[in-house]
Amino acid sequence: MRRIKIAQFGLGPIGKESMRLAAERADLEVIGAVEIDPALAGRAVGDALGCPLPAAARIHSSFAALAAQAGLPDALLHTAGSDATRSFAQVLPALEAGVSVASTCEELIFPRLLAPERTTEIDALCRRTGARLVGTGVNPGFVMDVLPLCLTGVCREVSAVYVERVVDARTRRQPLQAKIGSGQDPAEFRARFAAGKAGHAGFRQSVALLAHGLGWRLDEIRETCEPVVAESRVVTTHFDVAPGRTLGLHQRCVGLAGGETRIRLDLQMYLGAPLPHDAIVIQGRPGLNVHLQGGVAGDDATVAALLNVVPSLLTAAPGVRLLTELPLTVCRSASAAAHLP
Amino acid sequence: MRRIKIAQFGLGPIGKESMRLAAERADLEVIGAVEIDPALAGRAVGDALGCPLPAAARIHSSFAALAAQAGLPDALLHTAGSDATRSFAQVLPALEAGVSVASTCEELIFPRLLAPERTTEIDALCRRTGARLVGTGVNPGFVMDVLPLCLTGVCREVSAVYVERVVDARTRRQPLQAKIGSGQDPAEFRARFAAGKAGHAGFRQSVALLAHGLGWRLDEIRETCEPVVAESRVVTTHFDVAPGRTLGLHQRCVGLAGGETRIRLDLQMYLGAPLPHDAIVIQGRPGLNVHLQGGVAGDDATVAALLNVVPSLLTAAPGVRLLTELPLTVCRSASAAAHLP
Repeated sequence: MRRIKIAQFGLGPIGKESMRLAAERADLEVIGAVEIDPALAGRAVGDALGCPLPAAARIHSSFAALAAQAGLPDALLHTAGSDATRSFAQVLPALEAGVSVASTCEELIFPRLLAPERTTEIDALCRRTGARLVGTGVNPGFVMDVLPLCLTGVCREVSAVYVERVVDARTRRQPLQAKIGSGQDPAEFRARFAAGKAGHAGFRQSVALLAHGLGWRLDEIRETCEPVVAESRVVTTHFDVAPGRTLGLHQRCVGLAGGETRIRLDLQMYLGAPLPHDAIVIQGRPGLNVHLQGGVAGDDATVAALLNVVPSLLTAAPGVRLLTELPLTVCRSASAAAHLP
Repeated sequence: MRRIKIAQFGLGPIGKESMRLAAERADLEVIGAVEIDPALAGRAVGDALGCPLPAAARIHSSFAALAAQAGLPDALLHTAGSDATRSFAQVLPALEAGVSVASTCEELIFPRLLAPERTTEIDALCRRTGARLVGTGVNPGFVMDVLPLCLTGVCREVSAVYVERVVDARTRRQPLQAKIGSGQDPAEFRARFAAGKAGHAGFRQSVALLAHGLGWRLDEIRETCEPVVAESRVVTTHFDVAPGRTLGLHQRCVGLAGGETRIRLDLQMYLGAPLPHDAIVIQGRPGLNVHLQGGVAGDDATVAALLNVVPSLLTAAPGVRLLTELPLTVCRSASAAAHLP
C-alpha cells in the first residue's frame, strides 16, 4: 500500500501536534510544512518539533516553495485560523495544484454561511483541478454537528436537536484559554465578543451543518455569549485569575424555524468547569438521549479528527465538501496501520 | 426535486412498517411491493397496510412482475431474512436490472464474512449494472458498529472497543420475542442456538465491520449465548413465561488479535430487562465513554435506518457497499422533506 503524502500548513500548537501524530502513523508520509515564522523556515520539521520525521521534510515559507523542493503532497493539513475567506486564500495555491486540503478552520465546517460566493468559486476551482477541501475538528466538526447527525440516522422523525458541552479549559492549550477570555475584565470580554474578537468560533457553522443535514430551512441563527466570572482566585499554567475576572464563557447558539427553536447548542468552557461532559438530545421518534462522560477531550481529538479525515477526503468527489458528504471518518491508529489491506 | 422511487421486498412486520413510514415521506414515491404471501398478492399496498399510498402501488409476487407492471424503482428495500446467500438470491433480479438495494439482512452488514465468493460475484455484477447493495439496521448496523466507528473518528489511537446493550424485549415485535427464545426450555434454547436457529443475528458481522473500519486484522471472532431464565412468571402480549423458562438471551461476541480482546460486544435482550441502555467504551487516546439512556429503541429505529440510507446509497459508487463507505446517513423526516433544496 502506498503511503499518503501529507504536508502541514501552519505550525501553531495544533499544527505541531498534527505533525507529531503523523510521525507515529505508518500510512502517512510527511513531506514538509509551511510556516511563516522566520525562526522555523529552512529547518527540518522533525528537528524543530522533536519528533521522528524524515530529514527531507523541511519547513518552507510558502506552499510554492514546498512544492518546488518536495513535490506535491496528496493532502495538505491546514491549521492556521478560523476565518473562511483568509483560509481560502491560504490554501488556494494547493487547490490550484490539485492538492486536497483538510482544515481545522472553524468557518470551513460550513463555508457557505459566511462566504457563499467565495465558496462557489473555490468549489468550481476544485472541480477543475480535482482537489477537495473540507473543514473538520471536534467542535465544530463532531460533538455538536456530525455526531448528532449520525445519531439521527436511526430516527424516522426529528423535531429538535439539543447539545450541551461543558469543558474544563484548564486542560486546554494557552491560545484557547486566551480566546475564551481568561483573566479579562468581564465588560472587556463582552465588548470583544460583540466585536467578533472573542468567543468560541464555529457555533453558527455547527447549527448550519445540522440544519443542512436534516433538510431544515432555518429562519434565523442567533448567538449569545456571557463571561463566566471567577468567585475565587483560579490559577492555571497560563493564567492567574482574580475574583471578579473572567474564567471563560457560556455561549449559546440557536436555530429557529417557524418561530420554534429546532436547534440549541450550549457551551460552557471555562477554567475549572466541574463535571465536564457532552450531552446530545435528539427529540424525535425514537428520541435519543446521549451522554459522553468527561466529554470529547481537547487537542488530542482535534489532531485525530484532522488526520483521520484524510483517507475519507481523498475518496470524495472533487469540490468544497462537507463532512457529511464523506465516507465515515474513523481512527486509523498507529497500531492498525501495519494491518491496512 | 424528483422523488426517489422505491419498492419494498418482503411485507413482514418490518416491511409493513417501512411502507407506512414511506407513506409519510414527501421525498419518496412507493411504486409497489413484492411479497410471496398469496393473501396479499394483487392488492394495493396502501389498502393492505392501511396507509395512504397511491392506488397504483400494488403487491406483486416477484420483482419481475413488479418491474413489468410498475417499471423499475430507484431503490428496493429488502426485509426478508438474515441469511446473506438467500438475500443475495432474492435481490439478484433487482441488481441485474441496475436497481440499488438497501437490506435489513443482518449478514449483509459485512457479507464477506460468511459469503466471500458470492460477495465478490455480486459486487462485480453491481459494477456492471450500476447497482449498489448495502445492509443496514440498528443492531447490526448502528449501535454496535457504525456509531462506535463514528466515535473513533476523534481518536488518535484506539486499543479496544466495548459495547453493551440491554434491551427490554417486552417492547419488541413477536418474531423478535420468539427469536430470543421467549418461553422455551433453556436446554432447548441452548440447542437451538448451537444449531444456528436462535439468538441475535449479525453479531459477528458487527465485529467484522468494526475491525475492518479500524484496519485491524482479527485472529478470531468468538460468540457465546446463554438463556436468561425467568425467576417469576412474566406475561407479555405475545408470551406467558413460567419460572424456569427462557426470557431471552445474553449473547457475547469478542474479536481477538494477538491473544488480546480488541472488541467485546455484549447483548442482554430479554422480557423485562431492567434499565435498558446502550453503552459504548472506546479505549484509546482520547478514551470515550458514551451512554445512550434507554437505548436505541426497536423497530422505529430499524425502519428509519432502512429508509434514511437510501439517499446516501444512491450517491455511492456501484458495488456491494459497507455502511462505512457511504456518506453520513441522517434523518430525512417528513417535516423536513418539504424543505429539501
